[in-house]
Order: sequence, then C-alpha cells, then structure tokens
Amino acid sequence: MTGVMTPDQLEDRLRQIGATRYHNLHPFHALLHGGRCDKGQVQAWALNRFCYQAAIPRKDASLIGRCHDPELRREWLHRVADHDGSGDDPGGIERWLILTGGLGLDRDYVTSQRGALPATRFAVEAYVHFVREKSLLEAVASSLTELFAPRIHHERISGMLEHYDFIDESVMPYFRRRLNQAPRDADFALDYVKREARTSEQQQGVIDALTFKTEILWAQLDALYFAYVAPGFIPPGAFDPKDIA
Amino acid sequence: MTGVMTPDQLEDRLRQIGATRYHNLHPFHALLHGGRCDKGQVQAWALNRFCYQAAIPRKDASLIGRCHDPELRREWLHRVADHDGSGDDPGGIERWLILTGGLGLDRDYVTSQRGALPATRFAVEAYVHFVREKSLLEAVASSLTELFAPRIHHERISGMLEHYDFIDESVMPYFRRRLNQAPRDADFALDYVKREARTSEQQQGVIDALTFKTEILWAQLDALYFAYVAPGFIPPGAFDPKDIA
Repeated sequence: MTGVMTPDQLEDRLRQIGATRYHNLHPFHALLHGGRCDKGQVQAWALNRFCYQAAIPRKDASLIGRCHDPELRREWLHRVADHDGSGDDPGGIERWLILTGGLGLDRDYVTSQRGALPATRFAVEAYVHFVREKSLLEAVASSLTELFAPRIHHERISGMLEHYDFIDESVMPYFRRRLNQAPRDADFALDYVKREARTSEQQQGVIDALTFKTEILWAQLDALYFAYVAPGFIPPGAFDPKDIA
Repeated sequence: MTGVMTPDQLEDRLRQIGATRYHNLHPFHALLHGGRCDKGQVQAWALNRFCYQAAIPRKDASLIGRCHDPELRREWLHRVADHDGSGDDPGGIERWLILTGGLGLDRDYVTSQRGALPATRFAVEAYVHFVREKSLLEAVASSLTELFAPRIHHERISGMLEHYDFIDESVMPYFRRRLNQAPRDADFALDYVKREARTSEQQQGVIDALTFKTEILWAQLDALYFAYVAPGFIPPGAFDPKDIA
C-alpha cells in the first residue's frame, strides 16, 4: 500500500496531480483565456498575480539560504535572477509590470500591493513559509507546478492576444520568456525529486508538496472569481475596477 | 496629518475599523445567523472555523515565546489554557468539537483539517506568522477583533438556536464561554496598545495590525461563501456536504 515507488511511478503520480488539480482547470482560467473577462477582471487578475511574481525571489532565495549542497544552490540561483533581473535583463517582475502598465494600472499602486485581495497575499505567503519551513526535498517539489506551466502560457498568449483589444504583443514578454525558463527549471526539479525521494515517506512528502502548491494557485483564482466574477463581493479596501474606469 | 493621536483617539480609530471591516458585516454572516444556511453550509462553516480555533494556542504561545516582559507573559498565558484546557476545563477547542460533533461531522476528519478549504488554512497560518514576525505591539493589536466579538456571539447563539432544528443548547458552550472570556482579553489588549503605542509609527502599526486581522476573518468567510453558497465551486479535495448527506 505504502511501498516505495520507482522514480517513474513517482513521476506518473506527480503528473496525475497536474492533470486533476492544476489551475488551468479552474473556471477563472477558462474565462480569462476564452476572452470572457472584461478589462477590470483582467486588471484584477494581473494586479493580484503580481503579488505571486514578487514573492518568488524571496521563496527561491529562502530555499538557497537553507541548502547545504553547493551544487543545488548554484543550480537554483538563476531563478532569483530570472525574476529580479541581472545585467541587461530587467527580470520577470519588471516584465510583469509591463503587463500591468499596459492594462492601465499605476505602477506604484501595483507594487504597493495595497489593492490586492487579502486571500492572494495569504496564499502567496503560505507558499514562502512552506519553502522556508518544510524539508528541502518538499521545498524543491513545491516548484513542480512548472511542469504544467508551458501549456497554460501558450494558451494565455494566444487566447489573450486573440480576444482582448486592450492586450497586444508589447505586454506579453513575461509569458514569452517563461516558455523557455519554466521547462528547464521543471526538468531539473523533477530529476532531483525522482533521485532524492527514496523512501515512501519522502515520496509522500513530494506528492503532498505538489498538491499543496496546486492549492496555492487554485486559491488565488477562487479569490479572483469570488471578488470579480460571481458573486462579485470585493473585500473592503481591495482593488475596484470602477474606481479607475 | 500623521501626528500622534491621544490614546482615546486611537481607540476611536480602532473601533471605526471594527465598524467598517469586522466580519459581522460579511454576507455569509447574515446567511448563517438569519437561518438561511442549509445544514451542509453550517457544517462547512464549523469545519473550517475549527482550523482557526486550533491555531489560536500556537498564535498565543508564539507571542509569549518572544516576549521579554514577565507581566505581559503572565497576563497572556491564560489564553492558551482557555483554548487548550487545563484541569477540569476541556478548553475551547474541545468545545468547538462538541459543535462539529453535534453537526454530524466525524471528529478525526475535523481535527485532521483534511476537508478544510486551502484558503482557510492560508489565512489562519498568515495570522500565526504575523504574530511571530511583527513587533510585539502589532502582535497584541492583532488580537483586538475580540473587542467586536461579544455582539457576534450573542447574535450567533440566538440566531442559530432559533433558526436551525439541528442546533440546540448542547452544542453552544463554546459561544457561551467566549461571552465572558473575550471582553476580559480585549480590554487588557486595548489598554496595552493605548499605553504602548506612543509614536505615530507605532499607532499606524496598531491600526494596520487590526486591519490585517479583519482581513484574516473576512477572507475565511469569502472562501466559505465562494465554495458553499455562490457560485459554489468546491476546490479539489475539500469537504463536500453531499459526501456525508
């Protein structure tokens, strides 16, 4: 029942989590990519998602900061630079701000995170704390949603360009870049957990970590749907598209 | 503009946060206390709220654990016992389990928190982390939602007894007890922040901490409403009343 899986069996189990729990299955995703969001809903999505983008370097640096293996630290370091930028590359957070700027959102308002849904911030910080507090293996495993990201990015680029007249190619560099970054990172992390999760307890920890991460992503779309689609109850103090319309 | 308030002005400002942001203003609250929830929705509420109850002793012990002032530690300690019990008193968590048991929920299922909404867990843990990581003054201030609790407990007791045939006096000891505990604790914490928040920065920290705490409570009701009222999208793996109906 709780015997040890082969590495490939573990991979199958992880891919099954993606097939049943990844946020491409969430109804908000279908609205967004199918062109059925209005501009205010797309703004709300981009504004809230900024909180997630902005937290990723802290998450990854926290992982590096508790890692005694120089190989893993070296491999992981470029993730921080991917988001914060280095040299001529402004980084993923700046690329996200191109998107929010193109949507008409004030940069300082976005970066202040004042208008983000509290539920977004709670989910994002739960992810950061998970990576700081769980085992290193679980921390690495929680990154594995990137295995499922390329398809969502493809759908996002084509769906948003096709359906929204307020979206054009100029605001899409974040997603274009992630098409290359995410698979490289995901392959490394997958190899790592397949190699390092040798006991059934460790394998269960990896499975639970990826499940947890899908909950982090799912809960963010739940909160967006609730506040901005139906029933449309915006919590006190959160972004209201009417205020900038 | 950002001058120092008198202690009584600060209290007024804090009571104003309660008047505009406390979760008695949330639509789920009106449904619950007005008798317009079905049994499954009341179960979902009690099941999710258990996560909050269960976290309170960790939150309070964390506060004590970072406090260098023996007076404050001594004063705060009874909060842990109030929830975990001591001597003949089984404590608030056990009293909450009387409620969930009376609603037909399996004790182990409730205490495992397996069926709780991820958004509930994220909000609850955000509260625990806030108390561990912010200043002691902010940690104390975040408890001040108890100033507004007695009214909600009164409404809850009378509303639930009146409207639900699956609720009777036998499951209400949690709320009965809190009617006495919460005001005592709130008065102490209010006196503390009025005395200790002497700069405008400290006062703003207190205001922000109480605002944050109202967001913690509000987000939990948002998540319940979304999953179990409208649109009624239960996240993968969360409690589904149909499974035990």
